[in-house]
Amino acid sequence: MALLDELEAALGDDVVLTGDQISERYRSDESHSGRALPFAVLRPATVEAVSQALAICDRHCQSVVPQGGLTGLAGGANPRGGDIALSLERFTGIEEIDAAAATMTVRAGTPLEVAQQAAEKAGFLLPIDLGSRGSCQIGGNIATNAGGIRVIRHGVTRDNVLGLEAVIADGTILSSLNKTMKNNTGYDLRQLFIGSEGTLGIITRAVLKLKPLPSSRSTALCAATSYEKVVSLLRMAKLMLANVSAFEVMWDSYFRFNAEALGLKFFDVDHPFLVIVEEDLFGNDQGGERFEAFLAAAFEEGLIDDALIAQSEKEARNFWSVREGYTMDKMLPSLVNLDISMAIGRIGDYAAECGRAMLARFPGAHVSFFGHIGDSNLHVTIATQAGTEDDAHTIDEIAYDLVRQYGGSISAEHGIGTLKRDYLGHSRSPQELAVMRHIKAALDPNGILNPGKVLPPV
Amino acid sequence: MALLDELEAALGDDVVLTGDQISERYRSDESHSGRALPFAVLRPATVEAVSQALAICDRHCQSVVPQGGLTGLAGGANPRGGDIALSLERFTGIEEIDAAAATMTVRAGTPLEVAQQAAEKAGFLLPIDLGSRGSCQIGGNIATNAGGIRVIRHGVTRDNVLGLEAVIADGTILSSLNKTMKNNTGYDLRQLFIGSEGTLGIITRAVLKLKPLPSSRSTALCAATSYEKVVSLLRMAKLMLANVSAFEVMWDSYFRFNAEALGLKFFDVDHPFLVIVEEDLFGNDQGGERFEAFLAAAFEEGLIDDALIAQSEKEARNFWSVREGYTMDKMLPSLVNLDISMAIGRIGDYAAECGRAMLARFPGAHVSFFGHIGDSNLHVTIATQAGTEDDAHTIDEIAYDLVRQYGGSISAEHGIGTLKRDYLGHSRSPQELAVMRHIKAALDPNGILNPGKVLPPV
Ligand SMILES: Cc1cc2nc3c(=O)[nH]c(=O)nc-3n(C[C@H](O)[C@H](O)[C@H](O)COP(=O)(O)OP(=O)(O)OC[C@H]3O[C@@H](n4cnc5c(N)ncnc54)[C@H](O)[C@@H]3O)c2cc1C
Ligand SMILES: Cc1cc2nc3c(=O)[nH]c(=O)nc-3n(C[C@H](O)[C@H](O)[C@H](O)COP(=O)(O)OP(=O)(O)OC[C@H]3O[C@@H](n4cnc5c(N)ncnc54)[C@H](O)[C@@H]3O)c2cc1C
Repeated sequence: MALLDELEAALGDDVVLTGDQISERYRSDESHSGRALPFAVLRPATVEAVSQALAICDRHCQSVVPQGGLTGLAGGANPRGGDIALSLERFTGIEEIDAAAATMTVRAGTPLEVAQQAAEKAGFLLPIDLGSRGSCQIGGNIATNAGGIRVIRHGVTRDNVLGLEAVIADGTILSSLNKTMKNNTGYDLRQLFIGSEGTLGIITRAVLKLKPLPSSRSTALCAATSYEKVVSLLRMAKLMLANVSAFEVMWDSYFRFNAEALGLKFFDVDHPFLVIVEEDLFGNDQGGERFEAFLAAAFEEGLIDDALIAQSEKEARNFWSVREGYTMDKMLPSLVNLDISMAIGRIGDYAAECGRAMLARFPGAHVSFFGHIGDSNLHVTIATQAGTEDDAHTIDEIAYDLVRQYGGSISAEHGIGTLKRDYLGHSRSPQELAVMRHIKAALDPNGILNPGKVLPPV
Repeated sequence: MALLDELEAALGDDVVLTGDQISERYRSDESHSGRALPFAVLRPATVEAVSQALAICDRHCQSVVPQGGLTGLAGGANPRGGDIALSLERFTGIEEIDAAAATMTVRAGTPLEVAQQAAEKAGFLLPIDLGSRGSCQIGGNIATNAGGIRVIRHGVTRDNVLGLEAVIADGTILSSLNKTMKNNTGYDLRQLFIGSEGTLGIITRAVLKLKPLPSSRSTALCAATSYEKVVSLLRMAKLMLANVSAFEVMWDSYFRFNAEALGLKFFDVDHPFLVIVEEDLFGNDQGGERFEAFLAAAFEEGLIDDALIAQSEKEARNFWSVREGYTMDKMLPSLVNLDISMAIGRIGDYAAECGRAMLARFPGAHVSFFGHIGDSNLHVTIATQAGTEDDAHTIDEIAYDLVRQYGGSISAEHGIGTLKRDYLGHSRSPQELAVMRHIKAALDPNGILNPGKVLPPV
């Protein structure tokens, strides 16, 4: 039977979209780099249907690109010509919240925000959180091992997945919906699928950790004169505050641009580094004294020159709006945002050297830096005057060559997809790439799952 | 060239022990189940020597059993007849402590306690800790994904490994001594080696997370009337205490046996469940008020009937000595200690049903339960009157059949090795076992690394 007929016969024709039924949205993720529409879109609504779909495609050696919420920034969910897209959008819903175990069992297509709200309703925090929460899916978060804004306290997505179910290329369902923190029974297959960007299997369900819901937060905006002092401040915060939940650093250039754009002014003079420090509070704890003692100690040790404690939610939001910098994207439409990581102690030198190299190559460009420094994650934001694709390519080369010299990672959280694929060798050795290919061949011998992504061609 | 000649020529004869040079200690781990001495022991002192040794053995299809501190409890490090043992005992030492990144780079053969002390000297806590700390090695801890007594706060070993270096069967060195929390560059190969008990590669170096060193601790011994109340107490502790660092539950039978054996008395009446709750404190925080408020709330909600707060280190030690139960091992020499996990809410019923089944089969036996319930980890301790190997086998069957019914794990922390190998199918599906075998074949096509361990024969 022809492939599409076989798929329709097995799955029903409401699952299989073809021709005009395929809308533009299946073309690209949020990197807007997708070039082709898939030749069919499958929207299975059960695990068994995912399994059948893959088994059939595998027999036909038909390539399949898994699609979640399409908020990815690395081109990982973009179809190539001839790919079938398999979207999880109809496999949604929370299957269980186990309050004793503090876990949630959820279907992969569930939007992150829906899962967050369900957790809150049950009195828990779902610790995964990112700006794209309204559209991204739990399956996509796991497939990209998403980071986000709570990593310093709760870790990355990998750290919050207790159990996982995935379907591998031949249709085999691997189900391990484990709810425990401790389970040493053979190889931990979960880990293969987390962060592999749809190249090893399709994630269908997961058991996620839930955490106690904070009752409130303390937030401060601190000013420091050097990167070294910022690092010492981080260590002091971890020692003196029970639950540091954010440590976000803005280099002067980034802070000034965004504060001005938003019409906000916080300090009378400019400072080289600005840091948002936040602590989660629980129960009746107001945390005020502890937080003030921390800031006083930081002053005393000369780590900070000035600090503001948010007196209201609104003031805290103001600090955060500068950090989020959404206006920046609008004012600098060709803005390139790189997402890298390296040993925390080296980030200051990296930023200085990277800034010099960029301005030497692109005089007059906007170059600024900010990052989740508590997680060793730096964002480099650059807008050249021409803003061309060629410029973007040159920016990648300059930034990633330096990352290699500093022993860092070219992708802290967004993943490799297609956009960083050709730089993967900057962060991983030829031996590691060879072993990744062995693993890929072992799990997907026909190479049908998301070909062309993550692994550079040999 | 003959294998041993080739090894000696490549590695030097001080690295290769044969014949009388091989002492009894290489026969078995702490399960005392080893039957054979290895036919040679290799003790390489560099990563390159590990690589050369494996490359040679692989060419000869010579089986190799990796040996760490030999404190394992699952028989994983025991040689089979004809195996060569590769011991990491000479590859020791801390290579670096990076205070800014809060990481330690350490060689696999380093005893855990040595690494802990080095961390403390630098003002940090190494969060991995187990009773065998004096002898077990960092490499063994990673190879078994060890748990231990700080899991509720810091996670298992897997959660504390940032970077890893391992040598696979053909001698290829995979080095990824990453120091960052965020690194999404292709497949996370670390995870393959963590917990795979020496069957996929030999771990040579690791980058471990360091944490702030607590300045003191609050400790209480609480008495509760039902398992359900214990679970509610756990949730309340997580909400009200900033840094719960232990939540250890003893069933009455276990508590009474050990308290009596140690001549300690804590309460006037017997209680069905006893719980040690501990909180880590930092800086000047004495935590006293918070801790008392927590206990008061627990009384008020009817979760506990009585509680003692340790007024000194010695009192806290007394609580812990009952929990550790070292005298029990001496008084009941044939004691079997099983190490299982399942969803926290189900553990109470499991223990009740398991206790009944054991006593029905072995009237008059000692049967008791305790566990790191905060980590969903239960220990079942049983001594039959005959104390034979046959009895031990029957105990395994009864306990693990029930684990399967409860959807739990037959090994929470000790691993599979040889002793639980034939029960692996109680916790993992045939599909999962098949994929594990694919992975094994991809990384070790000649099957030289620790054959006969973890994976049951097909
Ligand atoms: C405004 C905004 C803010 C963002 N903030 C962050 C942030 O803070 N941290 C961060 O890490 N990322 C961030 N991102 C990037 C993106 O949201 C994440 O990568 C997210 O996890 C992707 O989820 P998705 O469901 O949209 O996946 P998609 O974009 O659909 O897919 C991403 C990759 O995963 C694969 N995939 C998707 N679903 C599955 C599945 N069920 N099984 C197997 N493979 C699958 C795809 O093939 C693709 O390779 C942000 C993006 C935007 C637009
Ligand atoms: C008193 C006592 C208390 C204990 N408490 C705990 C506890 O609380 N939690 C817990 O999880 N365990 C506990 N254990 C079990 C044991 O200590 C752990 O499993 C420990 O991690 C084993 O480390 P090791 O170096 O002794 O490994 P070994 O026993 O030598 O080896 C264990 C396994 O790892 C492999 N291996 C060892 N080193 C390497 C390497 N470098 N590369 C690849 N493979 C390697 C071996 O082949 C074997 O399969 C305890 C044991 C004792 C005796």
